[in-house]
Amino acid sequence: MAATNELIARLLAGDKLALARAISSIENQDENSTGVLNEVDGRIGWAHRVGITGPPGAGKSTLVGKLAAALNDRGRRVGIIAVDPTSPFTGGALLGDRIRMMDLGLREGIFVRSMATRGSIGGLSRTTQRAADVLDAAGYEVVFLETVGVGQAELDVAEAADTTIVVLTPESGDAVQAMKAGLMEIADFFVLNKSDRPGADQSYNALLNVLQITQTSSSVNERKDGWSPFVVKTVASQNIGIEQVIEGIQKHHQNMMSGDRLIEKRKDRLRKLVIQLVEDKTRSAFWTGDRITRLEDGLNLILGNRKSTLQFVEELIKE
Amino acid sequence: MAATNELIARLLAGDKLALARAISSIENQDENSTGVLNEVDGRIGWAHRVGITGPPGAGKSTLVGKLAAALNDRGRRVGIIAVDPTSPFTGGALLGDRIRMMDLGLREGIFVRSMATRGSIGGLSRTTQRAADVLDAAGYEVVFLETVGVGQAELDVAEAADTTIVVLTPESGDAVQAMKAGLMEIADFFVLNKSDRPGADQSYNALLNVLQITQTSSSVNERKDGWSPFVVKTVASQNIGIEQVIEGIQKHHQNMMSGDRLIEKRKDRLRKLVIQLVEDKTRSAFWTGDRITRLEDGLNLILGNRKSTLQFVEELIKE
Repeated sequence: MAATNELIARLLAGDKLALARAISSIENQDENSTGVLNEVDGRIGWAHRVGITGPPGAGKSTLVGKLAAALNDRGRRVGIIAVDPTSPFTGGALLGDRIRMMDLGLREGIFVRSMATRGSIGGLSRTTQRAADVLDAAGYEVVFLETVGVGQAELDVAEAADTTIVVLTPESGDAVQAMKAGLMEIADFFVLNKSDRPGADQSYNALLNVLQITQTSSSVNERKDGWSPFVVKTVASQNIGIEQVIEGIQKHHQNMMSGDRLIEKRKDRLRKLVIQLVEDKTRSAFWTGDRITRLEDGLNLILGNRKSTLQFVEELIKE
Repeated sequence: MAATNELIARLLAGDKLALARAISSIENQDENSTGVLNEVDGRIGWAHRVGITGPPGAGKSTLVGKLAAALNDRGRRVGIIAVDPTSPFTGGALLGDRIRMMDLGLREGIFVRSMATRGSIGGLSRTTQRAADVLDAAGYEVVFLETVGVGQAELDVAEAADTTIVVLTPESGDAVQAMKAGLMEIADFFVLNKSDRPGADQSYNALLNVLQITQTSSSVNERKDGWSPFVVKTVASQNIGIEQVIEGIQKHHQNMMSGDRLIEKRKDRLRKLVIQLVEDKTRSAFWTGDRITRLEDGLNLILGNRKSTLQFVEELIKE
């Protein structure tokens, strides 16, 4: 308890080592995590959370690095949470980017944390959210949540963020495809990175066209509440377009603040968190030693085709 | 009820339209699903479930198509469940393969079903498993479960399958990478497809080397229960190596049958299903109208920094 209190005190003072330990506690749900979260909960709501997603190789890590450095240069404290959905087929490629990003964390006002997710999707959105809460409470003003857009991960990140940026490149000629596939629903705006490469103008125009078409769709419009997504061209590796992306982030933040959108988004996020926590608690309360024994007996009956699964579940719950 | 009974009768007689409708019922959890699953549960355990995963472009759909045709030629009834984890960035590329696969479903003894998963990962493994159960009960002897290996999807498929095949190509020079990233844990054997391409021999040898190294690792050995993964070279588009893959599938099936492994694997699968069903039921029982009202009040307190999330969850559960 004394140890937890000291951890919390150091954390709130912005000590990076304490931050790292607190986030690990939450990931592992160890004995410090409840204490930390209870203290953190009274102190959140200040940081702007920016999700960054897109295909592998789009230059997301480079972009986040440049954005963080630029914001830090003007005095902002910046947190970066890099979420790796560890696909076995892209695993290795990310390593170099991650190492470069860690270097950035040596700066006084920048905190970098990498999180792996293999096998824990679903839990990802919660852990990411809680880690962002810790950074928020510790006084980080902008928190970037970065992930590769494969399957579920980009939805989880969009859920944990106030503003979501989708990064594409001229090579990902599947921009139109990507947008059809539902990215309109999560992107507050787009970054076309590596826009000095051949085909950049066509890609840019294609993106604009699709944006125009989808904006007439009422479902998107309703969600966006009058906000119009746009495209920013960058060459992140050469620091080109970074200021424009920061402007885009600020513009979106202001839009969110002007209505109820920011508070509604945060409430949605919190609602899901509470529902998930209730589920965790009721799950562990349900599976008593006795019920676990009955489960194993029941499995044998079902496998022997002597009982239906749904019937067994009903019986198990009724008692 | 009468409609459900007719659906079940037609389904058990192998009627493809009834099959398709039954699987849709389960996906949507509509009014027929309970009836269908209760009937299906008494009739499963006969089909051999074969999971196929690997990176985009490895030729998985082509391979599954050729395997299904070859098995059907020798009188087997074959089901195919193609699971698309709809990454927005690979979405379109799969379409052509899927259409070719659907053509295969016109054959008398082959049933093809495509399932999308966007936003429902976690639910994927259950829905896939239940769809395979339906095909099993309807007398399909081999059921292929195919998915792109991105993040969680390949784990879900491995969980729903008796035998899991990982498909690679010489181009995916990341074979070694892929294996380090945990594919050893799920692959019962490997297929090196497009093995007429340059670099095939090096890829093959690299795979064999990594297999040899990882087989000395005790954790893998224990799980495999004496089974040694191997590599089969194919050129699926030219029907080369298809027989060898079928032999590999049969060999693994015999190995599973000789000990307790098959029954243990099926029990594991069923255990997870029951736990998930219990969760669904308790969740809907918990969230009464009153609790939902209290949730909304609580969210406002937490957002106003006047209550901690964990404390609120405790209170909500206690009542």
